[in-house]
Amino acid sequence: MYMSHLECPKCSAKHDPHKIIQLCPECGAPLLVRYDLNKVKANLKKEDLVSRKPDLWRYRELLPLVDDKYKVTLGEGMTPLLALDKLGNKLGVELYLKDEGIIPSGTFKSRGAAVGVSRAKELGVKSLAMPTNGNAGASWAIYSAKADIDAYIVMPVDAPAITRNECAIAGAKLYLVNGLISDAGKIVGRAVAKLGCMDASTLKEPYRIEGKKTMGLEIAEQLNWEVPDVILYPTGGGVGLIGIYKAFRELQQLGWIGDKMPRMVAVQAEGCAPIVKAWEEKKTASEFWNNASTIAFGITVPKALGDFLVLDAVYQTNGCAVAVTDEAILKDQAELAAAEGAFVCPEGAANYTAAKKLRESGWIKPGEKVVLLNTGAGLKYPDTVQVAVPVLEPEQDIPV
Amino acid sequence: MYMSHLECPKCSAKHDPHKIIQLCPECGAPLLVRYDLNKVKANLKKEDLVSRKPDLWRYRELLPLVDDKYKVTLGEGMTPLLALDKLGNKLGVELYLKDEGIIPSGTFKSRGAAVGVSRAKELGVKSLAMPTNGNAGASWAIYSAKADIDAYIVMPVDAPAITRNECAIAGAKLYLVNGLISDAGKIVGRAVAKLGCMDASTLKEPYRIEGKKTMGLEIAEQLNWEVPDVILYPTGGGVGLIGIYKAFRELQQLGWIGDKMPRMVAVQAEGCAPIVKAWEEKKTASEFWNNASTIAFGITVPKALGDFLVLDAVYQTNGCAVAVTDEAILKDQAELAAAEGAFVCPEGAANYTAAKKLRESGWIKPGEKVVLLNTGAGLKYPDTVQVAVPVLEPEQDIPV
Repeated sequence: MYMSHLECPKCSAKHDPHKIIQLCPECGAPLLVRYDLNKVKANLKKEDLVSRKPDLWRYRELLPLVDDKYKVTLGEGMTPLLALDKLGNKLGVELYLKDEGIIPSGTFKSRGAAVGVSRAKELGVKSLAMPTNGNAGASWAIYSAKADIDAYIVMPVDAPAITRNECAIAGAKLYLVNGLISDAGKIVGRAVAKLGCMDASTLKEPYRIEGKKTMGLEIAEQLNWEVPDVILYPTGGGVGLIGIYKAFRELQQLGWIGDKMPRMVAVQAEGCAPIVKAWEEKKTASEFWNNASTIAFGITVPKALGDFLVLDAVYQTNGCAVAVTDEAILKDQAELAAAEGAFVCPEGAANYTAAKKLRESGWIKPGEKVVLLNTGAGLKYPDTVQVAVPVLEPEQDIPV
Repeated sequence: MYMSHLECPKCSAKHDPHKIIQLCPECGAPLLVRYDLNKVKANLKKEDLVSRKPDLWRYRELLPLVDDKYKVTLGEGMTPLLALDKLGNKLGVELYLKDEGIIPSGTFKSRGAAVGVSRAKELGVKSLAMPTNGNAGASWAIYSAKADIDAYIVMPVDAPAITRNECAIAGAKLYLVNGLISDAGKIVGRAVAKLGCMDASTLKEPYRIEGKKTMGLEIAEQLNWEVPDVILYPTGGGVGLIGIYKAFRELQQLGWIGDKMPRMVAVQAEGCAPIVKAWEEKKTASEFWNNASTIAFGITVPKALGDFLVLDAVYQTNGCAVAVTDEAILKDQAELAAAEGAFVCPEGAANYTAAKKLRESGWIKPGEKVVLLNTGAGLKYPDTVQVAVPVLEPEQDIPV
């Protein structure tokens, strides 16, 4: 076990990692897990990973679980990094898709849930509550079921229908709210106080981000420890982006990669772009986005608790933030499927739209190595595909 | 390249594997790919696999592709083998779930499509056609898109809706039929003659089965080359079961496993159980099942072309065939999700139902190592889960 302490990125206070803790007791900011990376460096070589199981637990030394007996796993991680040759050639770059659709529950949320629930179990948590745009709730519901933890999940009525099924069949205590994830968050806030359960809201516990961090570790390992030039990430709560940034920083400290960092791009929809607005105004925090709305439902987050960490990662890596339209997202979702066979979620397609925009503007240069993070399977969003299919009677023929 | 020839399991004729071939030209039976296994044995040790990428192409020497440049991959294979400790303890066995939901398009069909489409591309195929209960069509549509092959897909109107979306967004030529997969098959048969495309129907080309075979290779590798006592497989067309059986036979010839074979169990729904009926009557082929109907839609196959191969695998391994009710399937689908966090498809749940039945009857003995094959993600069958969720207004509380 190499976890050393919890650290507040705002006030720098250090905290004991061996008890249940939510936000920084001193200033209310989200906490980050720190490790004794010198000790990791001394005991682990990157070559040691080769023979390990292809899941996120291969990075055991960089994860916060103390005792493996609390590990709650459904086989998550080591998702494919696919070369998108056709679209890459079209854009004049080396294009990759990190496909988080190939994971339990079909979204990257399962990484956070696997590590978050495992650690909650280790700390003796019996029940937890969280607001969600659907996918995180589904993931936490199935991992909580496996861990025998009661999960209270609150999601907007507009969240993808399939995520309700996942929560329900896993036995979670599921509620819908006539409103946005921010409204769900307020209901959860009140419930946590009343029910005495752990608050598993985005960044209100420090372990979910450690699970998501493994996306960055995998990208580095899959590219044979060569750091890509650009990573595009669809940004709602932003934990994935923060996690990937944290991963590359830790890899630098381990000496497994050099000084180069990937330029991190926060991609949002024009209907909900608080991070983009803050970045354009060179601010270090975002403002609440009114009337948020986009078909990329997972990134409908009007104000993210970790906005300052997202913006910091973007600034520190000379990255940027880009907003794209719903119309372009849907068009590019179809282009990705028809050209590369990748049926990604709208949030994932938004990255491709953004990459095209940044390539056109010259911000992405010819030949650069560019990774699109597809956060989930298109399967979870059946309504984004319009189909009008001819129906034949058994005796009819396919028209020639 | 270790592929030596194509062999007819019925009339034993040998055929050239380097040209497009469908059924045995001499007797009309499905063909199987054969390899020079002595040469594989001399050139490959099972330890060599350890450092290979976690996808099905790790078994390169046992796959029919000649040149890697034709490989069409979306990152398929090396799906998790999950220990189901809670349910295993309940049944008094060592229970595992091979979870084929964690794969492109969310079902095991993508294994057959990856290898089948790759090989079709290598052989110069420009268009193909197939009937499907939905999932195979979706898989072949996305891999064909990646390979720039035109795909004509015909599926029953009752096939899962999401599979239409997958075909449509990948640009396949999709048709629905007012009927069953057998009706779709007849339409495809006529279209193949008229359009001059490859017939990609189940077992009408010899390569799909090679992709599915990798499930067996992975189970063996994941259990550290210790053969399980029982493997339960939901059986429609039966290619998965035939493939797994073929895998274990090849592993025996390689000397990577001993004489022991897993007892193969063909699981069907009571509403469509032609293989079970044939097995009960000790026959070597099945009869067409009239009025076939089950919520486990993927196994609604009234008469499988490879029925004799399925039955042979069952007889050769001292296995059996079991039919289960839709009612029990739905109940067990929920039990799997609530206890183990595994949201499997109805076909996958049917295996658990069958395992319970066989354990009760004593056919599965205490402490045996039992593998349930979950052929796909529950995500693809949203209608099997009934949810009645309370809706809150933002100012309302979760009831305590």
